[in-house]
Amino acid sequence: MMSSSSKLKLVEFFYDVISPYSWLAFEVFCRYRNVWDINLKLRPALLGGVYRGSGNRSPDDVPRKYHYMGMDLLRLGSYAAVPLRAPTQPVHALMAKGSLAAMRFVTAVGEMETDGDDKVEKVSRELWKRIWSKDQDISQLASLAEVGRQAGLSAKKVEELLELSQDSAIKHKLRDTTQEALDYGGFGFPLTVCHVDGEAKIFFGSDRFEIMAHCLGEKWVGPQPVQEAIMKATMAS
Amino acid sequence: MMSSSSKLKLVEFFYDVISPYSWLAFEVFCRYRNVWDINLKLRPALLGGVYRGSGNRSPDDVPRKYHYMGMDLLRLGSYAAVPLRAPTQPVHALMAKGSLAAMRFVTAVGEMETDGDDKVEKVSRELWKRIWSKDQDISQLASLAEVGRQAGLSAKKVEELLELSQDSAIKHKLRDTTQEALDYGGFGFPLTVCHVDGEAKIFFGSDRFEIMAHCLGEKWVGPQPVQEAIMKATMAS
Repeated sequence: MMSSSSKLKLVEFFYDVISPYSWLAFEVFCRYRNVWDINLKLRPALLGGVYRGSGNRSPDDVPRKYHYMGMDLLRLGSYAAVPLRAPTQPVHALMAKGSLAAMRFVTAVGEMETDGDDKVEKVSRELWKRIWSKDQDISQLASLAEVGRQAGLSAKKVEELLELSQDSAIKHKLRDTTQEALDYGGFGFPLTVCHVDGEAKIFFGSDRFEIMAHCLGEKWVGPQPVQEAIMKATMAS
Repeated sequence: MMSSSSKLKLVEFFYDVISPYSWLAFEVFCRYRNVWDINLKLRPALLGGVYRGSGNRSPDDVPRKYHYMGMDLLRLGSYAAVPLRAPTQPVHALMAKGSLAAMRFVTAVGEMETDGDDKVEKVSRELWKRIWSKDQDISQLASLAEVGRQAGLSAKKVEELLELSQDSAIKHKLRDTTQEALDYGGFGFPLTVCHVDGEAKIFFGSDRFEIMAHCLGEKWVGPQPVQEAIMKATMAS
């Protein structure tokens, strides 16, 4: 049952499209926002900034861990029905190229939206698809323009957004959001902040949904709640 | 339904009592071994050796991550009904003191058992309780002797085991088990190896039970399956 918006528990989701585990958690949240009584707030931020600010670093410097994570991601992607595929470039090369332009673009899209975050969701998904599914670039302006069009924005709107994303106000906005993630105690992405009973509970990673549901007073039925609901309806009929 | 032992899927669980996430996973497995059609094999090994062999290191070198993990552990412990408490010493001090004597002792207990691993389970649990619940030492011989008695071993047996744990055969056994974990691709604990359809599927950490159940063709009902079963029975009656 949906409550009125004021009664919904605020859940902030900090992410960067360079992070594949963020994609997994993002898709799960986009499904559960219609199942749980939550007000999901997408908070595009910069993973590189969170690493710098916390003294953390990419976990790909241990070869076995890197190998495991590749396998883990494909397995989790398959289980959650998120089409993750290994990019041909090693992660450190992707990280070196970074996601600054992409996340500024997402931030600009967020500034443009007056109601909800439908376009932020669509643009973020298209960016993840490029880098983590279709093995495509996300650093060039042409790539971002294509993403914008695939997310349903007009060519004119895309041009405006690309210009806006160079604006210092957008640069500051992205920096501020990243700083907020750090202020919550963040050291990597995805970072989820659940506001429950006046307290901000933080969760790192894409593997804390079950206990997050417990904290929110909701029920976890796996990464595909809609399918679960359809299956139950089919069995009941 | 329990199948005959030969039909059960082999699940190897590599752990070290210095690792609190291993305790969480251990207790969950000890509950599920009676629920899932698995043959759980406890594989006591040395976390320090896995770190050395893989080039990995303890994740406590990033202050925010360390702080988060403390909170994460207490939260998960409470949810899973595992009485985890923060030790007064920082983890790097515990790691420096290490678990070599303790894990040699567990290995000796394993060598002594002729049927199953009941004593390995009990001794491991008492060690975890000391370090991760009661803030007590596990490095002194007197500590290990107490653990042995609490696990139901006679004073004479404990003395024999402490002597055996100094034996080079036991030292080699522990080293070999640690090497096996590395050979499977391990870089930290807990490491779980599920043998399914002639394939060894590896899982790192205490947060992969849901997908592990999926791989094993079993059902995940949270970290307290027995309570779940009792609740269902109560509701049905």
